[in-house]
Formats: sequence, structure tokens, C-alpha cells
Amino acid sequence: MNIALLGFGTVGSHFYKMAQEHSELNISAVLSRRPRPELACTVTADFDEIVRDGSIDTVVEVIGGVEPAYSYITAAMRAGKHVVTANKQLMCAHYEDLLSLAKECGVRLRCTAAAGGGIPWLTSLARVEKMDEIDAVEGILNGTTNFMLSAMTANGADYGAVLREAQALGYAEADPTADVEGLDARRKLVLSANLAFGVSVQEADIPCVGISHITAADIDKAKEWGYTFKLIARAERAQRAGAVAAFVCPTLFPVSAPEAHTDGTGNLVSLYARRIGKQSFSGAGAGGFPTASNVLADCFAVMAGCESYYTDKAAPCAVDNSTAASRWLFRRNGQYEFAECSAEEAFARCDADLQSDPCALLARVADTDQKEE
Amino acid sequence: MNIALLGFGTVGSHFYKMAQEHSELNISAVLSRRPRPELACTVTADFDEIVRDGSIDTVVEVIGGVEPAYSYITAAMRAGKHVVTANKQLMCAHYEDLLSLAKECGVRLRCTAAAGGGIPWLTSLARVEKMDEIDAVEGILNGTTNFMLSAMTANGADYGAVLREAQALGYAEADPTADVEGLDARRKLVLSANLAFGVSVQEADIPCVGISHITAADIDKAKEWGYTFKLIARAERAQRAGAVAAFVCPTLFPVSAPEAHTDGTGNLVSLYARRIGKQSFSGAGAGGFPTASNVLADCFAVMAGCESYYTDKAAPCAVDNSTAASRWLFRRNGQYEFAECSAEEAFARCDADLQSDPCALLARVADTDQKEE
Repeated sequence: MNIALLGFGTVGSHFYKMAQEHSELNISAVLSRRPRPELACTVTADFDEIVRDGSIDTVVEVIGGVEPAYSYITAAMRAGKHVVTANKQLMCAHYEDLLSLAKECGVRLRCTAAAGGGIPWLTSLARVEKMDEIDAVEGILNGTTNFMLSAMTANGADYGAVLREAQALGYAEADPTADVEGLDARRKLVLSANLAFGVSVQEADIPCVGISHITAADIDKAKEWGYTFKLIARAERAQRAGAVAAFVCPTLFPVSAPEAHTDGTGNLVSLYARRIGKQSFSGAGAGGFPTASNVLADCFAVMAGCESYYTDKAAPCAVDNSTAASRWLFRRNGQYEFAECSAEEAFARCDADLQSDPCALLARVADTDQKEE
Repeated sequence: MNIALLGFGTVGSHFYKMAQEHSELNISAVLSRRPRPELACTVTADFDEIVRDGSIDTVVEVIGGVEPAYSYITAAMRAGKHVVTANKQLMCAHYEDLLSLAKECGVRLRCTAAAGGGIPWLTSLARVEKMDEIDAVEGILNGTTNFMLSAMTANGADYGAVLREAQALGYAEADPTADVEGLDARRKLVLSANLAFGVSVQEADIPCVGISHITAADIDKAKEWGYTFKLIARAERAQRAGAVAAFVCPTLFPVSAPEAHTDGTGNLVSLYARRIGKQSFSGAGAGGFPTASNVLADCFAVMAGCESYYTDKAAPCAVDNSTAASRWLFRRNGQYEFAECSAEEAFARCDADLQSDPCALLARVADTDQKEE
């Protein structure tokens, strides 16, 4: 397999190192804006050079962001090259597009590293979807916020302090919005729900509450009640045919739940299927080697002749949270208040500005009966 | 794919049902001692009929036990048929044999359902082994004993009572030896260690202590110390090159460990790899549909043209527990006693008859520093 690697950041450089150990993988070109004399292969800033190189059969994209990644991988597919990407933002933004282009061009498209870091999550979902009916998927899919909530829970620190700590450790970016407001988790949820239910949901249709409004006092109060805060992305079949319920929000778990014990930057994600029951997967949700390992596994799958994408099914699908009932915790004028309602109602009660009283949606209360099945 | 299904018990009948939903799978014959007029395909008690049928390309073996399963699947491979089996006993007893026969005959051999029920455990191990160095594998791999220990922990019942309950519920067999003495978990450990380390270890070389000597008083005492008993199978790289450490024994977990919250017949199994870190997998460890789902997934893998076996590596390998140091709990003349020593020493201190004092090995104390990595 002759690979062109687009991007040489954390994931790219770790993938490069791992790929070097496999003689069947040959990285023949790296797309990089700056010269990299340390690399033995062609280094170019000109993507056209890569597209024109007929000896390159597979493009590995780890640049991130929608453009220029979208232009690159569509050009690569049109040139008959397989694509492996770790780019969740791109996969969410152009899901149906990219799947049909891969099919049309007769090439393979994989994105296992886009959700769950090094966990074989998307592949496991695709595997179960082929033989069972998946009712729900949910989990801790963002390492940054899990690190922050774990630190707040462990030592009583406030949000601002743990954010600075996460930034100092390289777990959070200078602009932490995508992580702390749940947008990163939501993108991973889109890909998970799409595979689990054979649909294509729109990122913007999924209500999303992050963790930036959670205070040390909230964490303390939850502890008093025997709960631990986790940021959870969840999707389930809606009662309305052809729709799914999906949302991202802080969630309260009792200490007996495995989610409550998933600390640091770890991810833990579960599927609930009719026949197989619940299956959970946990491990490093980010980091150079874990993420690169899923990129590498995708390359092996492409080499082994996997299908065009994980699934053929990508029917456009509405998000309908009107029947996803739960118990919810609100904070209104500084007072805590539990209510039973649908996710649709819960998010509707929540102001656009979550920092502001009178009505902040604090958390969903996890349905632990389901967990203990 | 034209399949002959050998055995029509719980796993066989559930596999039959699932396979019917996939038009690319055709079960054309079932080997059964008794007539099954409800089945549309050929039902025969004569295996030779199946071997001679050139239209059958794949044999699915879910009879269990070493013979006649061994004769059947070796004859099938020699006749050029792929083999999917759920038979851990057979795979352990003839590991090197079966791998080299599959290679020699140019056929595919899969046994994912042999360990972890419906969990994609062996496939995940094989996947990580290709790109990282696995240092250890460990987990709850026997649903029967996990059910029993969970029940003892939850309600203070004694061993005999929960065994009768497990038997009444169909979780334990009339002769529960293979489960309660850890032999079933040990076979799953052999297959796990073989894939993780690219070796072939002998079942009989692995020391094994089950749960039949654990009393309600032991469980109570462990609770007092903040521990939960779980039956764990563990293998790790030994310091001596070319050897692995491996053992099966009750293990004490603090309540913060996910193992402590794996209840009922669930399985939870983890791998520790140098680059990827810890990855854990949990779900139903037994049951018709979960186990059949791994059989079905193996059929899909065979159809997709997977390799001969998960790995090419099966170097005969010694078990050396002399450097696997831990903290251990003994019960001597009714007194509890902790000691730091190697697994080799711990098992040596343990009498052959575990029911008898003066020195019963009760449990290993889990290394939770490793768990919290």
C-alpha cells in the first residue's frame, strides 16, 4: 500500500512512526507546509502532486477541519484513491456526500479514529448493526471535559482552575469551545448514531449543553446525592419512525456505574442492542498513539478489501427528542430542581445562555436500570 | 456462503436464527443426532455426508468438547472447508495443530465466540497485537462464577445456596466443576494469551484456583476491607524471555474498579498495551444470541477473506509465574493473612485441596495503580 499522509501533527507523526514498522505500508509522500528533512519520503506542500501520483493508492488525512481537507479527499477519491481520515468535523459536515462519492468512485473510506481515539468503537458499532438492532448508543466521548470533570470531582476545584490546568497539560486548546461546549462530543455522536441506526443526522439538529456552567458547588451537591457528573453524548431510537433522539449534556451517574469510574482523559462508550444486550468499550479517547492506532487499523482494513464505507445506509433522518423521557436536574435562581420530562422539553427550558439564571439545564440523571441490565 | 452447522443446542439454534436473516449465508446442512423436521435444510447424523458435499464451503462447529469435534473440523479443513468454532476446549487442546492445518489446507479458522461470549475480544486482541506490544491481558471471563460471586456479595448467601440458584436459572451445569474451579476461564485465558503474545501456552501449565472455597464469611471480610471478590484470569509478559506469566484466581478489587461493578453473568476484559494503553471490553459473556453473534461475525470475516487464523505466531511457550509479584490473601486455620510474593509462590503455598485448611489461597489483590493508569 502506497500512502500519502496529509498532515504531520500529533496524529500524523505517530501514525508515521507506527506505519514504518509495517513493510506492507509505504508512506511515499507527506503533505506539509514546511520542509521536513528528517523524513525519507517525498515532502510536498502541493496536493496536486499527490493526486497526480498514480503510484499512491491511499490518502491518510489527519489535517482536521473542513477545508482544505474536503477538497483534498474528494479529489483523492475522484482520482481512485482510498481515504482514511481521523476528521470528525469533515465527516459530519459532508457525510452523505462522502459516502456516495466513495461508492461512485469505487474506493474505500474509513474514519475509525474520528470517534473514541484508539477504541475500536465505530468498527464495533458497524459489526453489531449488521446483525442486531441497536436501540441506543451513549458514552463519554470527549477526553478534555472528562479530565476537567474528574479533576473538579476529585479536588473540589472550580471550572476556571481546571480549564487552566487542562490547557497547561495540553489536554485543552487555547480556545476550548469545541470541547467544553460539547461540540466535539456531538460530532462523534453524529458518526456513532449514523452507523448505529443506518441514518444521516445533522449535527445542528442535536441539542448540546456542555460543562462550562458547572460549578464546584454543583459538583459538591451531586456528591452529596451520591452522583458523579459526566459529559454524555446519547442517541436512541425515537418512537416516531425514521427519527432518532439525540443530545449531548452533563449526566449524573451513581457510583455503581462504570461511567463514574472513568477518570482522566479516558473514554467509555456503550451500545444497547436487542439480542446482544449492552456492550461497552473503554480506553484512551485521544493521544497520538491511540488515535494513530485506529488510523493504522483502517489502513489494514482498506488493504484487506473492506467495503466502500462501514455501511450502505445513510438515510437523512430527523432528530426527535419528544419521546426521550428522563429525569433532569435544573438550577433555577441558585436552587436545584429535579423534573421528569422529555429531552425536548428539558433543552427547551434551558436558556441559550447557559451561564445565566434563571434556568440552567445542569444534567440528565442516568437511567441506571438500563445500565444494570 | 454454504454452511454446515454442527450442533443445534443453544448457540447453534440462535446462530441458525440469525443466519436466516442474511441472504448471503445459506445453512445447507445441520448435523444433528435427532431429526429436526422444523428445519428446511438437510438434517443428517452422518458427518461424512457433510464432508463429501462439495457445495459446502464452511463448517460452523458448536458441539463443544474435544471429540468428535476435533475429528470433524480437521476432516472439514482437509476437505478444503473453512471452520468457525465456538469451542474453547478444542482450540486449547489442539491449538498449534489446528493453526498449522488451516494454513496447510489454505482455509480459514476462527473462534471469536470461544472467549467473551458476544464481546469482540479475540478480534480486538488480534487487532492490537498487530500494531502494539501487549503487556498484559486480564478479566472476568466466566459468567457463571461472576453471577455466583455477585449474588454472594449482594445478599450474603453462602456458596452452596448460590450454586443451587445458578443451576436453577440455567447459568451453572449439573456438574459445575469447569466453571467453579476456573477451568473454563483458564481455557479462555489460553486463547487470549496466545493471541496477545503470539505464543502457544498449555492449559495444564497455568495454575488455577476457582471459587468453591470462598465462604460468605470471606465475602463479608472483604467488604469490610472495601474489596469485592471477582474470579480473574490474567496473563502478562514474564521477565524471562519467551515465557509468559499466567494464572486464574479470585481477585480483590476496590469499589472504584470497573470490575467491582461487573455484575451478574457479565464479562469484562482488558488489555494493556505499551502505546495504546489500557482498553476494556464488557458485555454478555454467554447466552445464545451474544455467543451466536460472534459466530456470525466470524462467518462474515471468512466471507470477507480474512487471514488463515488471527495470527501466524504460535511459538510454544512456557508459563513462568516467578516474577509476577502481587499482594495475596491467604486463609490459614481460619485466620486471614496478606503476603507479598510471586504468583508462583502464592500457588505453591496453596494446598491441592483448596477446601482444606491450613492454607487456602483466597485471592490476589488487584494492582489498582495499573488499573487507574
